[in-house]
Amino acid sequence: MKIILVGFGIIGKGVLKAINLKSEHLKKKYGLDLKVAAICDRSGAAIDEEGLDLELALKVKEETRKISNYPEKGCKMDILEVIESVNADVVVEVSPTNIETGEPAKSYMLKAFETKKHVVSANKGPLAVSFKELVTAAEKNKLCFRYEASVGGAMPIINLAKETLAGNDVKLIKGILNGTTNYILTKMEKEQLDFDTVLKEAQELGIAETNPHQDISGLDTAAKIVILANSIFGRDVTIKDVNLEGITRITPEALVMANKSGHTIKLIGEVTDKKLEVCPKLVPVDSPLNVMGCLNVAMFDTDLANDIVVVGTGAGDIETASAILSDLINIHQTIKN
Amino acid sequence: MKIILVGFGIIGKGVLKAINLKSEHLKKKYGLDLKVAAICDRSGAAIDEEGLDLELALKVKEETRKISNYPEKGCKMDILEVIESVNADVVVEVSPTNIETGEPAKSYMLKAFETKKHVVSANKGPLAVSFKELVTAAEKNKLCFRYEASVGGAMPIINLAKETLAGNDVKLIKGILNGTTNYILTKMEKEQLDFDTVLKEAQELGIAETNPHQDISGLDTAAKIVILANSIFGRDVTIKDVNLEGITRITPEALVMANKSGHTIKLIGEVTDKKLEVCPKLVPVDSPLNVMGCLNVAMFDTDLANDIVVVGTGAGDIETASAILSDLINIHQTIKN
Repeated sequence: MKIILVGFGIIGKGVLKAINLKSEHLKKKYGLDLKVAAICDRSGAAIDEEGLDLELALKVKEETRKISNYPEKGCKMDILEVIESVNADVVVEVSPTNIETGEPAKSYMLKAFETKKHVVSANKGPLAVSFKELVTAAEKNKLCFRYEASVGGAMPIINLAKETLAGNDVKLIKGILNGTTNYILTKMEKEQLDFDTVLKEAQELGIAETNPHQDISGLDTAAKIVILANSIFGRDVTIKDVNLEGITRITPEALVMANKSGHTIKLIGEVTDKKLEVCPKLVPVDSPLNVMGCLNVAMFDTDLANDIVVVGTGAGDIETASAILSDLINIHQTIKN
Repeated sequence: MKIILVGFGIIGKGVLKAINLKSEHLKKKYGLDLKVAAICDRSGAAIDEEGLDLELALKVKEETRKISNYPEKGCKMDILEVIESVNADVVVEVSPTNIETGEPAKSYMLKAFETKKHVVSANKGPLAVSFKELVTAAEKNKLCFRYEASVGGAMPIINLAKETLAGNDVKLIKGILNGTTNYILTKMEKEQLDFDTVLKEAQELGIAETNPHQDISGLDTAAKIVILANSIFGRDVTIKDVNLEGITRITPEALVMANKSGHTIKLIGEVTDKKLEVCPKLVPVDSPLNVMGCLNVAMFDTDLANDIVVVGTGAGDIETASAILSDLINIHQTIKN
């Protein structure tokens, strides 16, 4: 199976590292021989339909920051042109996220479908903005479109609801889908510190971004619950439809008061066939939703299986690559049959 | 898809109720038209290859305790003969568990494979005693053999590790796989009561069985980790290989002492490619493994996805039926391709 990797930042590098690490395992266990036919970044691309040397690609990127410097096979070709002209089965789309327009990732995906390539994506932006358009394009061309990595990183959510819990109607999903805000609230509670102090510390540790707006405003969580609403509940909504409140107004005093009644405060995203909400909520301290630090958690309320809760690492390069690999394996098994 | 239901106790009834409840959903969403061609219990069977009336079957069982009383289509045929002679695609095996010999369920499954029928089972006994023999029989006949319901009830464990986390090497699984012991320890901790008092109360509430030996000795958990060892770690072990200790010697004082150091005590099953252990362990109170009451929990330590934790209801008729249904849907999709 040949793939085109679009985007060569932290996640893209994680994908190559994971493929490198697991290539023997994938061959042996699934009969899946993954070759990377092209890698694209802002500078251009490296192309070899026989399969690029992944360690060399990582080295070139590390040393020169530009994949177009890949010896002999590097070029300045435009990403859309690479997707169109390179012979491959799957486009793995991990370019930068824009949760307002979804671009340019959305155009990459549409181009992939147009040229008969399956798509695996970790990109919240286009999924939150143009879910229906993308799914329709995939269906029209009878192609697979998988995006487990877009919500909750390594934590299985979308495939869990659609496949592992097949037969169940999922009535509600709620949880903590952003590790940065969970880290901040956990730290404020444990050490009785105020929001600004903890945010600054999280930024110094690299847990919060220099511009933390998307995380602390709840926008990042909102994008994720929009994806769950569209993919699991069959809705057709965007971020504008989310009832949204962030964590910037939570005080250490509020956390103390919550504790006194056996609760804590978490930024909870919640979605049903009617509800679409992100806001700080009281959570009982002995609830499975009360997970600490950077962990993510999702609770599925189902008609047969009762409540199922899954907890995992919501971010990280190799962790996100894990979800992308499981999507690639699934596509391989679907094509094979 | 035609099924033969072997075993018509609490789980068997749950399976029929779930099929009844979801039959429209299964047709619409998966194109799966489930017909029950035969139902067996100790008294005999009801057989109709065009599909039995499930509500009538439940009513007959409720009122007379014998499925052989099913009007016109009831008979005293032996279960092995039913499996052999009735034309069906899948045997759903939910007869009583014997974790020493695995019988008679094991013979039912072997007969199913011999007569070219797929098997879905919720039965720990034969899986813990004769895993390799059963898997080999299924493979030899190119048939599906699925048993998600045998570990953790509705909580996805086996399919999660094998499918949802595909691409990962699972290095370790540990967790609470028995709701009764978790209920007892939770109650002892919260109310400072001793083991015998809480056990008696749990028996009165129907949470613990009249003969609670298998639960409190850890044998039930041991059977489950043997299934995980064989199915996920590719080992060939039985209950005798488990390093086993139950919860009968835990005191309220031990729980108080654990609490003082920020811990609680849980009956933890743990399996790796070398380890196979069930014993009470200290668990940090803020660990995702610290779940309360009758809940089950499993933590997967993986090479790419980091730690993934799943929490759910480990028992119950409809909950167990949910896992059986997801296995049936998967077999339907495999056959279809």
